[in-house]
Formats: sequence, structure tokens, C-alpha cells
Amino acid sequence: MPDLPQLQKVLDRIDADFDSSLERLFALLRIKSISADPAFAADCKLAADHLCKDLASLGFASEVRSTDGHPAVLARSNGNFKAGARPRVLFYGHYDVQPVDPLNLWDRPPFDPAIATHADGRKIIVARGAEDDKGQLMTFIEACRAWKAVTGSLPLDVTVVLEGEEEVGSKNFVPFLEKNKDELKADFALVCDTGMWDPNTPAITTSLRGLVYDEVKIKAANRDLHSGVFGGGAQNPIRVLTKILGGIFDDDGRITIPGFYDGVSEPPADVLAQWKKLNLTAESFLKPIGLSIPAGEKDRLLIEQISSRPTCDVNGIVGGYIGEGSKTVIPSEASAKISFRLVEGQDPDNIRKKFRDYVAARLPGDCRAEFADHSSAPAVALDWNMKPLAAARRALTDEWGKEAILMGSGASIPIVADFKRTLGLDTVLVGFGLDDDNIHSPNEKYDLKSFHKGMRSWARILAALAETSS
Amino acid sequence: MPDLPQLQKVLDRIDADFDSSLERLFALLRIKSISADPAFAADCKLAADHLCKDLASLGFASEVRSTDGHPAVLARSNGNFKAGARPRVLFYGHYDVQPVDPLNLWDRPPFDPAIATHADGRKIIVARGAEDDKGQLMTFIEACRAWKAVTGSLPLDVTVVLEGEEEVGSKNFVPFLEKNKDELKADFALVCDTGMWDPNTPAITTSLRGLVYDEVKIKAANRDLHSGVFGGGAQNPIRVLTKILGGIFDDDGRITIPGFYDGVSEPPADVLAQWKKLNLTAESFLKPIGLSIPAGEKDRLLIEQISSRPTCDVNGIVGGYIGEGSKTVIPSEASAKISFRLVEGQDPDNIRKKFRDYVAARLPGDCRAEFADHSSAPAVALDWNMKPLAAARRALTDEWGKEAILMGSGASIPIVADFKRTLGLDTVLVGFGLDDDNIHSPNEKYDLKSFHKGMRSWARILAALAETSS
Repeated sequence: MPDLPQLQKVLDRIDADFDSSLERLFALLRIKSISADPAFAADCKLAADHLCKDLASLGFASEVRSTDGHPAVLARSNGNFKAGARPRVLFYGHYDVQPVDPLNLWDRPPFDPAIATHADGRKIIVARGAEDDKGQLMTFIEACRAWKAVTGSLPLDVTVVLEGEEEVGSKNFVPFLEKNKDELKADFALVCDTGMWDPNTPAITTSLRGLVYDEVKIKAANRDLHSGVFGGGAQNPIRVLTKILGGIFDDDGRITIPGFYDGVSEPPADVLAQWKKLNLTAESFLKPIGLSIPAGEKDRLLIEQISSRPTCDVNGIVGGYIGEGSKTVIPSEASAKISFRLVEGQDPDNIRKKFRDYVAARLPGDCRAEFADHSSAPAVALDWNMKPLAAARRALTDEWGKEAILMGSGASIPIVADFKRTLGLDTVLVGFGLDDDNIHSPNEKYDLKSFHKGMRSWARILAALAETSS
Repeated sequence: MPDLPQLQKVLDRIDADFDSSLERLFALLRIKSISADPAFAADCKLAADHLCKDLASLGFASEVRSTDGHPAVLARSNGNFKAGARPRVLFYGHYDVQPVDPLNLWDRPPFDPAIATHADGRKIIVARGAEDDKGQLMTFIEACRAWKAVTGSLPLDVTVVLEGEEEVGSKNFVPFLEKNKDELKADFALVCDTGMWDPNTPAITTSLRGLVYDEVKIKAANRDLHSGVFGGGAQNPIRVLTKILGGIFDDDGRITIPGFYDGVSEPPADVLAQWKKLNLTAESFLKPIGLSIPAGEKDRLLIEQISSRPTCDVNGIVGGYIGEGSKTVIPSEASAKISFRLVEGQDPDNIRKKFRDYVAARLPGDCRAEFADHSSAPAVALDWNMKPLAAARRALTDEWGKEAILMGSGASIPIVADFKRTLGLDTVLVGFGLDDDNIHSPNEKYDLKSFHKGMRSWARILAALAETSS
């Protein structure tokens, strides 16, 4: 069990080794591991090999394991899990990244990482994957490296599992978990794929919204029509689609789909009190993206709108003529991609059914609706009282000099539910992302401070978790 | 003045010469005169040259005249208009055609015309422009050819003007009319760019709907957002756009834009009685396009919905992610192309303003709307009692053995208003198109019967007009 002076040496080592750790991150960022595009399959393999080798250099028994998609990396310090022996954590990250389109909106090549200076003076690492998730996963690996360098070992046993298909729905990863269940056994899981409360306030994410992603296509006439000949007489699928989607929200920002809020509970009074104290304002949250008015349910705090309340967004819509100029067409079909963020108490299959029923009930004669199921994941609510969470919180508070916040995230990380279901593991979600990191967008970045203090945070968390479990 | 036996000889000549006239139409159809695509500018010139030469061979003083766009053809029989001399008609057609995309939906190459057999046994000419407007304009030229062949002259003076930019808004044609005003003087205009009532019932179009075509773009955040981070808190432009567009129609199919129907008058009782007698059914009009329920104002006849009532159609909509699969994006903008068909009493500028005001009034905070004006044209209502109209109607009734119907068209032909404004001319609109001609779509066709009896109809109309005016 490490004593405090030892931890201090590890932290000092992280500070002294910072430039090298940055170069190791850059080497990973240069690999074009875009999982969505088959043209980059070899790059995904390269990223897995690269990380496998790096973990082996830290003394992990490390292997690249094939899946039915891009490979995973499985690496263990000190053999397998043994009940009653010293604690073992399962760390999860993903090496795959989002596509880079539209490329012309990037200020520099997305796979040529560099340090830049943000408009407000912050130093940032700019590259695809700088945050999501290469920068984040490297904070953990670098913390392990520092522990090894200073003490020759880790304060507790660690299994690292890195997947290559998180950005495309992880459909081969759950079977991988099932198949390698024994080797993945641990006391709990750590995931580094979430954010901080703000650039100075660390956070642990204790709830994640679920997701239902559906596509609806409305079809009417058997061909595109001339609006001069048929306009007024023939049904227009865009008119139908906009009428249906336009009715999903009432004037108070509530979703009108019957039964949508069934099972959604109110936050406990103490949690709500904590949220109110946080005082998340439109000024701080929305101003950076050019907005000023919270768009959700009018009677809810902004923090509820974005984390504890279920939502609906149309993510894409298309129909008819979308080129330059004009064409007087009545199209034969129009479609929309629509997603719902779910909270505890909502069943994804049930919400999908309710949405489809809502569409069907509003479909005028002569129209048909076709649906495509893109993905779904239930919401996750973690136990606020679990021991590792308290230890991680103490460690984060020590590092940042500000109390770490337990927060709900509006995003969905399906793997957390998968860990619980397949491996029986609770997960502690710690991450250092910021709202302005442009993940999934051009000019993705990771604050240099997030990277640096992220490594230091994990070094502390590993020590704290070892203490707690002893 | 031709006597009846002479007209009979002309009609016989049309029958005897049918194969040659078809070959002449095919030669014109082989020219790829797509006005929208600059790559086909030389083909447009070729079509103008081809028609100019053909008209010269009929004894017309024929010239290709340049405009600021594709050239026009101007051809006159017997010199210029002289007041009080024998009557002169100005015939208008257009040699340009619509683009052919999507090419893969054509059953054969669009510029390789052929005779095919329709599913119901009708013989049809298949090619881009077969109807709109090459097939139609050739019915008139072939009628002139037959008159010349049989009698050595035409029963009245004819000026032919053919433009090459009708499919792209005729923006250079109005200045051309202004510039050549003197040479275009006539007693009235004839346009062959409209349809029949049904395959056996000829029609004269006496009203045309106007058009306002606008584009609206809703903007919110300053960049695309991740719906996990911002969903629920940030405004979504697709949600705003669908809400606004979805509210344009009430449950009875009426347009809700304040003041939209101001100035729209009810049809006179006798006209309404005639329409009721026509008994246009959903079965006959909508079934061929796979529909069965008139989509317009519930308390209106289908024939009113498609001809005498103003309408609104969203012609295109796009926003967010429209590729394969899913992306959890909240886009920064979404846009729609929207057009209104207008009737007499509605001012295009005023309707555009009312639409924009409607959008602006429904725009939530944090959203901006940008508009683009694509085109506008007022509705046209012709005088049902003008003499040439009655003459043309008699001639059509004689040819088809069924009373020619005076009908309103839902389409817009802005040139008719331009003739009135620039040249002071009333227009008689006679055409032989059918609702299933797929104009502007793949597999455009023209019934062989339309072409054949169209030529014979014009031969009769020329005679009837000469009689009337004498």
C-alpha cells in the first residue's frame, strides 16, 4: 500500500515526464483509426497494436484480440482476478475516433496533432480524438506508467480493455465481453470518457441518459410530382412529416408523445438542492455556442433539462429538392432521424414503440410510414454511495482543490449498462472533457490542463482506491 | 380565307405525312438542349439553329436572336404586323428541356426518342422534351407545314417565337420581348404548353396559378452540437422548422398564414356548375399516382383544390445528418424550399411578405431566419369571352368530337402575364399534354394521339381564327 510520499513522487514524475507523455499521445493521435469507414480498418488495427505494445512495455500481459469488427486490446497487470486478493479494476477506453468530415472546417489536418492557444488563452491539444477518447484513455495509461516508473508496480491490479468500435455502436464489443468474461473479472470498472463540471471543477458522472435512435420515412405518391399539376390535390410527405414532428413539443417544451414521461421520477430533494447550488446558467452553458435561452421544459432547471430529463432531438431531415435554386416538386417521400435521450424508468423499446405509435396515429390517409431502428441503450443511474466512488471523489478533490461534483450526464455510454449486465460490475465514470471540446466535430481539442491534471488525478485515484479496498 | 374542303385537304396531308412529322420531332428530341446546365449551351444553340432552319424552310423570315442567355428563335410569315390587315398570331413555345437526373430511373436514354406502348395500350413517344415542350411546339409547326404544302400559304399571319430558357425562369426572355416589341406585334398570342382535360377531351386553359417560391433557413447555435451534451438545453433548428412548417395547414387542409386567402374570390355559380359536371374524381386523378384522398381544403372540390384555390407545398427540406446510419447531432441550421401557387386577387410580393412574417412571428428566441427569393409570378385569368378563344374552342370540339373544356390550370406560365404586360396581348392556351406525361421527371412521354390530333387541332384552329377575325 503506497504511503503519501510515494504518491507525491508519482505526481512529480508525471510533471517531469510531461513532454514525453504528450509525445506518446501525439503518436496515438497520428493514427487514423476511424471506425466508421472501412477504408481505415488497417489504421484501427495499427492503433490496437500500438496500444498493446505500449501496455506490454508497462509490464501488462497485453494482447490484441480480434472481434467480428475492429480488434480490442486486453491487458492485465499481475494475472487474473482472484476473489479476496488485492483489488482489481477494469479500465475501459476506446481507440477509435469519429470521421473528420467536413474536412474544410478544420483549422489544421485532423491527424497532425499540435498544441494551440484557445481564444481565451488556454493551451489546447488539437486533433481528431484529442479528447474522445485517445487523450482521455492516455491519462490513465500515463498514470500507470508513472506508478510503475516510481514504485515498480501499481497500487492495485488493473485490467485494461480498449475497444475499436465505440463510435459505431460497439455491436461486436458486447459479444467480446461475454466471450472473455473470466479474463475481465474485476471489483469494479473505471471509464474515462466523460467530462468535468467546468474547466476548474472535476466531476464524477453518476447517471447517464439512455438513447433511442429511430428513423422515420413518410411515403405518399408513387413518384415525384409536379406541384403545378398536383399541388393542392396530392399529399405532400414533407408537409406530413413536418406536421408530425412539429407537434412533438408543446409550447412549454414538453414532449407530447403519450406516455413519454411515464416512470420518470423527480430527483430527490437533496440532489435537487445540490443542483440548485451549482447554479448552472444559460450564460455559462449556452453563451459559448451562441445561445441564451434554455430550450427544454420551461418549468425545469437548465441542469435538469440537459441531464435528468428525457429529451427528443431531430438529428436529420431530408426530402424533395435540396440543390441550388428551385424545383417545383412534390416528393414521393421524406424522412427524418430522431433520437430520444432517456432517463431511469424509461424502457428504450417502449419509448420506440410510443414514438412509432405517435407517428402512426397522426398519419393521414394515402401516407405510409417506414421505420429504421438505429440503436438503443437504457439510462444508467449509479449508486451514489458505492465505496470506490467516494474514494475517487476524494482523490479528485485533492488534485483540483475544489470539491468534485457528482453529476448526471446527458450523454449515453451504453457500455456502462453492458458492464453491469455481462460482468456484474459497477462503473466509476471519471473524465476530463469540457463542453467546448468539439468532440465529433471539426477542431476537436483537449485542454493541456485536462491532460496533465487528468494523469495526476488517475495517479491519485489509483492510490485512493487501493486504500479504500484494503 | 380557306373553305372547308381546303381544311380537309390539310388534315389529310397531316395524316399522310405523319411518319415524316414524327421523324422531324425525333430529330429535335435528339438535341440535348438542357438549359439549366452550362455544359449543354452548345446543344441549346443547336436546337435554336435547327428550328430556325426548319421555319425558314416553311417560308418564314426566320432568325436566331441572341439574348443574355440561350438564344431565341424569331420567325415571321408575311412581314410585320399591320393594324387592320389580315390577323397575325404570335405563337410561343420553348425548345429547352429539364435536366434528366436521376438518369437511372429512365427506361431508355432520354435523348434517344422511341415509340413505346403504355401499360394501358396507348402508343407513346418517350424522350426528355417529348411533351414539354418540343412535342407540343412541333404540333403547331407541323400544322403550318401542312397548310403551306396544301395551299402555299397560311390562313393568317404567324409570328413564331421560341425561347431557350423557359425551364430556368425565362429571365432573359422578358428583356428580349421588350427589345423586339415591334417585330412581335400581333393580335393575340397562342401558347402550346398546357394539357388536355383527359386523353379524349380537349381543353383551353383560361387561368393559370401564380407562384411564389421562397427558401427559409433557420439558424440557432454557432456550430453543430452533440445531442448528448446539449440535448434538452440547446435549441434545435429542425425542431423549430418543423414546428413552423407543420403549422401552415390546419386539420381541414386550410393554410393558416394570416391573410393568405385575402382577395381570393369564389368561382361564379355557372363556372362552379360546369366544374361539378366535369366530376373530376380522386379515382381518375389520384389513382395513377398511387393516391386516393384529395389533400387540399376539405370543403372544396378536387378540381378547385388543383386549379382555382391557392396552395402551399414544401418542395424540399434538409438539416442535420442525412447520411447512412445515425449521428447524434443538433445541427446549427435547417432549411426548406417552399412554394405557393396563387390565384387571381393574390399579390406575389404580399404573399411572400405574409409567409416571412408568419415565420418571424413563430421564431423562438435564439433562432434567426434567413430567406431567399427564388421566383414569383402573378396568377393569370383570361377573358372567357374573347373571340379567339371561342374560335379555338369550336375547332378543338370539331377535331376531338367532344366539347372542349375551358379549365383552370394549377401550373404557372409566367410568359402569359409577360405577353400582356410587354406586348398588350391576350393569350389562348391550347395544349395536348396529359397528367401522366411525367414532365420534369424520368420517362417523359407524349401520347402519339396527342401529337397527331394536336397537329390536326392546330390546322383547324388556324382556319377558325382566320374566319373569326375576318
